[in-house]
Amino acid sequence: MSEIQTPTQRTRVVREPQRAVYDRAVVYRILDEGFICHVGFTVDHQPFVIPTSYGRRDAHLYIHGSTASRLLRALKESIPICVTVTLLDGLVLARSVFNHSMNYRSVIILGKASLVEDREEKLVALRALSEHILPGRWDDARQPNEQELKATSVLRVPIEEFSAKVRTGPPIDDQEDYSLPTWAGVIPLEMHPGVPLNDAQLDPGCSVPEYARNYSRRRD
Amino acid sequence: MSEIQTPTQRTRVVREPQRAVYDRAVVYRILDEGFICHVGFTVDHQPFVIPTSYGRRDAHLYIHGSTASRLLRALKESIPICVTVTLLDGLVLARSVFNHSMNYRSVIILGKASLVEDREEKLVALRALSEHILPGRWDDARQPNEQELKATSVLRVPIEEFSAKVRTGPPIDDQEDYSLPTWAGVIPLEMHPGVPLNDAQLDPGCSVPEYARNYSRRRD
Repeated sequence: MSEIQTPTQRTRVVREPQRAVYDRAVVYRILDEGFICHVGFTVDHQPFVIPTSYGRRDAHLYIHGSTASRLLRALKESIPICVTVTLLDGLVLARSVFNHSMNYRSVIILGKASLVEDREEKLVALRALSEHILPGRWDDARQPNEQELKATSVLRVPIEEFSAKVRTGPPIDDQEDYSLPTWAGVIPLEMHPGVPLNDAQLDPGCSVPEYARNYSRRRD
Repeated sequence: MSEIQTPTQRTRVVREPQRAVYDRAVVYRILDEGFICHVGFTVDHQPFVIPTSYGRRDAHLYIHGSTASRLLRALKESIPICVTVTLLDGLVLARSVFNHSMNYRSVIILGKASLVEDREEKLVALRALSEHILPGRWDDARQPNEQELKATSVLRVPIEEFSAKVRTGPPIDDQEDYSLPTWAGVIPLEMHPGVPLNDAQLDPGCSVPEYARNYSRRRD
């Protein structure tokens, strides 16, 4: 496994260090509940931040995309990147504007991506990505043919240099503000799946599969 | 307003250009529905991507934070940044793994942040930020005192160099795949507010305000 001692100076949480989490198991739980990351990379001194989906397999994240995309073209150059995953859990309403906050869980990973060249690993990675986002789907759908495999780039990001930041719980007000008549508490927020929409060209005998009907990101 | 012709070479959508949106009104609608952005900046060749809340006022985004945070310390140096806002609308399940996609709306803004120094503009910006996230809250909560104002940095990001990318609608399969018996369609995803949780120290006579009971990000 990694030789890097977590946190490094670069991943140490500076602000509100009491909310820092460096535990790999906690970080994996956050990464497994999420499936959209924001990838940062720098081209000609200009940072770019691109949202994309990901999958985790052990101590690696896999990202995929068209070989034509700006993200994939840049990342293949083995430049330093930052992968950030953020789960928003609620608005925290304190009695004072100043103490308003959010409940969230976020992970940042610093490192370099490498291109998955081996055909077998590429398939394993694509399956991991698919199953990460929607368990059960891979076996149900038509799997990639050789031409599609060639048109897809898969990148591997090691989870070595990382940190997480987590806020939970009620607002924390200044002592003298607790007597104010302002409502205080938390508005929980959650990503909520709606009722699956059939494709218009669907075979009428085809019904919504279990994994699509009860979609949830909860992984506990 | 801006002298920059949108898109620039840096914000032009490379991959799937048919999903590109450069219209300011559409971009504002996305920015107004969202309230969490991912800010990218580079320090010693290492990009960082940090989630934070924001508010929009006309052609500017406002970001705030503790003067002690890594994000705010870096951004005050007037370095190039990228602000990305992503709204996830659904999982798009095609008959082939290769044509799986997501419905989303995302905006990227390139530019530089500047520190809001003027006390009055700072208050206006903080109010805009608060009202952007939770309309009605500012007037209901205790507003910032001088000490709190000093401890808060507010940054202004001009919305000048930007682009959006939007995908909506059903899956698009290869013609020969439409006859496959695989279910295809969309699982809609939406951020869903839960029932507000009273703070344990709440005055028993205090009830959940209207704006917290019916929280929604829809801005149409």
